[in-house]
Amino acid sequence: MSGGPTVQITDSMDTVNEVNDENVEDIVDPWTVQSSNAKGVDYDKLIKRFGSSKIDESLLNRFEKIAASRGQKVHPFIKRGLFFSHRDLDHILSLHEQGKHFYLYTGRGPSSAAMHMGHLIPFMTTRYLQKLFDVPVVIQLTDDEKFLWKDLQLEECFGLSRENTKDIIACGFDPEKTFIFSDLSYIGSCKEFYWNMKRIEKLVTFNQVKGIFGFGDSDCIGKISFPAIQAAPSFSSSFPHIFNGRTDIPCLIPCAIDQDPYFRMTRDVAPRLHLSKPALMHSVFFPALQGAQTKMSASDPTSSVFLTDTLAQIKKKINKYAFSGGRDTIEEHRKYGGDCEVDVSFQYLQFFLDDDDELEQIRKDYSSGALLTGELKQKLIKILQELVGHHQAERAKVTEEVINYFWRTDKYACSEKYPPLPKGSDKKKKKKGTPKTKEATDEIGNLKVTRETT
Amino acid sequence: MSGGPTVQITDSMDTVNEVNDENVEDIVDPWTVQSSNAKGVDYDKLIKRFGSSKIDESLLNRFEKIAASRGQKVHPFIKRGLFFSHRDLDHILSLHEQGKHFYLYTGRGPSSAAMHMGHLIPFMTTRYLQKLFDVPVVIQLTDDEKFLWKDLQLEECFGLSRENTKDIIACGFDPEKTFIFSDLSYIGSCKEFYWNMKRIEKLVTFNQVKGIFGFGDSDCIGKISFPAIQAAPSFSSSFPHIFNGRTDIPCLIPCAIDQDPYFRMTRDVAPRLHLSKPALMHSVFFPALQGAQTKMSASDPTSSVFLTDTLAQIKKKINKYAFSGGRDTIEEHRKYGGDCEVDVSFQYLQFFLDDDDELEQIRKDYSSGALLTGELKQKLIKILQELVGHHQAERAKVTEEVINYFWRTDKYACSEKYPPLPKGSDKKKKKKGTPKTKEATDEIGNLKVTRETT
Repeated sequence: MSGGPTVQITDSMDTVNEVNDENVEDIVDPWTVQSSNAKGVDYDKLIKRFGSSKIDESLLNRFEKIAASRGQKVHPFIKRGLFFSHRDLDHILSLHEQGKHFYLYTGRGPSSAAMHMGHLIPFMTTRYLQKLFDVPVVIQLTDDEKFLWKDLQLEECFGLSRENTKDIIACGFDPEKTFIFSDLSYIGSCKEFYWNMKRIEKLVTFNQVKGIFGFGDSDCIGKISFPAIQAAPSFSSSFPHIFNGRTDIPCLIPCAIDQDPYFRMTRDVAPRLHLSKPALMHSVFFPALQGAQTKMSASDPTSSVFLTDTLAQIKKKINKYAFSGGRDTIEEHRKYGGDCEVDVSFQYLQFFLDDDDELEQIRKDYSSGALLTGELKQKLIKILQELVGHHQAERAKVTEEVINYFWRTDKYACSEKYPPLPKGSDKKKKKKGTPKTKEATDEIGNLKVTRETT
Repeated sequence: MSGGPTVQITDSMDTVNEVNDENVEDIVDPWTVQSSNAKGVDYDKLIKRFGSSKIDESLLNRFEKIAASRGQKVHPFIKRGLFFSHRDLDHILSLHEQGKHFYLYTGRGPSSAAMHMGHLIPFMTTRYLQKLFDVPVVIQLTDDEKFLWKDLQLEECFGLSRENTKDIIACGFDPEKTFIFSDLSYIGSCKEFYWNMKRIEKLVTFNQVKGIFGFGDSDCIGKISFPAIQAAPSFSSSFPHIFNGRTDIPCLIPCAIDQDPYFRMTRDVAPRLHLSKPALMHSVFFPALQGAQTKMSASDPTSSVFLTDTLAQIKKKINKYAFSGGRDTIEEHRKYGGDCEVDVSFQYLQFFLDDDDELEQIRKDYSSGALLTGELKQKLIKILQELVGHHQAERAKVTEEVINYFWRTDKYACSEKYPPLPKGSDKKKKKKGTPKTKEATDEIGNLKVTRETT
């Protein structure tokens, strides 16, 4: 089962439009995911451009072994190549194999109370990895970012952090090992986090954030310095209540590939601070109902299934909006079969149908024409209704007290788990923890991520 | 005694070099004070360029009345025009006359453990104003700024904050009404301060800080966003432990004029946040021993008298380095007299000799030649030795416990002094508190402060 087929999203628009100007680069950054190419984002190209590595068969085999040793399976997101790219993931697996510490870091900009299915991907993955590796998780809610980018008040952004925390908790995180924090709440309570922000801010110039994020002269100074805030949780010293002041615990960040610019910057800065570079696992974008060319928008209710949708709304949305790879008439469909590579319902099943054999059967039947679009959609609707229904039930259980518990900083027996390092060993250990990679010295300089000017 | 002679520092280099290119502007910003004109900084021009107002006779008369009503005198720094410029100081005096609240804010970038006499000016003035008006004082130590600008570690900058706190306390601040804070300590402990930083950061663009502070593309993002941190203490909501969450308490900032760019920016932002603009009192620069053309440097020990100097060092420095307006020989001096306008010792006496009559007598005698340079310097040496000796004795009394008390946030009975505003009255009061000034809408746009590119 290892090394299964990679997801076909990258090529899903092939049959719609063959125009493919090799010279026009996709725009992929934290605010824009856009491809001028009708094929959608070219992930192989992205790996080359970003200088990351493919999650290949040998890495999947290592995952398999680790999972098997713990009586678990590799998560479909990983096995099916939906997490397709990485940085130093092999190093993290080695640490685990050696019984050494690391932690997981992921996050979300809480721009809307209504999260959609795509938003769940990093959380579901992180939840799975927490269970597999038995490690602490930190989850950053960048409500300060949303305040700077959106026409919202701080109080509103903070309120969204509380709301989104419920959805995150509903994913099943271990309350004893998971710290969910809002920037607007945590930064004003943790000196060490602020100190790391300053250390990062000192090493990154306007020229660099201009190149990486496309910031311009008319952007506010809050935006310009924000990348340091998203970088800070990559360093264990930003969480003294979890890691007991230890600076040498490496971190692994599961995220969609559009967040990579923040962490390329972080990885450039880390060695200069004598800290470990964060490792990364990058996911593809969860396709919009209308097709895979762009990522979904929380502000367009027809672009995705939301976690707040009713069962009836889910049914209607899939039936009405999910782009179909089927034929125009039943007769044609039976004769020529459907196209799984452009069919959004099939792509959603790749994310959420756990059973590999069933998925493969559906692929065959839909391609042959034995399975009709309506039938395919029926299968998806049932799975999504179950998933969203379960999510809503779990979310309903999350009280203010439960939120507070996940936000608490005083629940970790950190001094037992992370004893202070012997004096003098600190620096050496840190250096050892930084793997040598091809982009060790000029991770920022190597990059060119374009972005529409604001 | 009111409306006495203004200090002559602006014209002190007149006789040395008459070159005066009207088209070349002085460079005055928080990092550089430089005049291409041998006359030194032209303060009248600065008032025009910065769009501030002169502290004139009528304002001094109001000060006289307030001081007299409290059995006090107007401080020589104010009476003698060493504080020469202001913004909305009249409004603050009106508030006081009406029995309304305001507070004082000043600060320091703790770049060196050794502070010089010039560093004391804002603190001595603020101390005097605290006593006169009986109001709270907040004192910001921008150790984060120093970290960003200097080749220092955070720990070192924080250590300098502790050291400099001793010098500030030695100025005699009321421990019950004075909050001294280090950014590196306070920001990581006060959500409200961080929230105000973000509110300010959102309203200021890179273009604006480029224009105001001369930042460039190769400056680090920490520098670029720093002005928001120096702006935040201008708003009472940044100190919930003092002002009980009230947003409507206006603030008066005594500072050297080179700090004005920060507060022009702040005053531009304030109305958009529905907050009061901070009022300002600007001092001239304390002259270097070598002459008034530039301000002193903490890194050049011969440029000023330091608070750590021994009595013998003070004597030697004044005798050896204080630029003299006396004649080459005693005979010539007796015949033609000395020039008070360029004599640094006389200028120092204008700062530190309290007795107006004695100062006037010295001026007459030195100008006539009756008083020799050596005799003049003797008088200054005695005063400085007393002042520094007293400072050192007061500083020696400052224990770690005393520092901690000034840094404490839990010593204010704020809910008694600042009861919450009735609901709904907040916005109205705030607007009323913002005086209408000519630069209400485009304080930033009006300015051109040049700075050497970094």
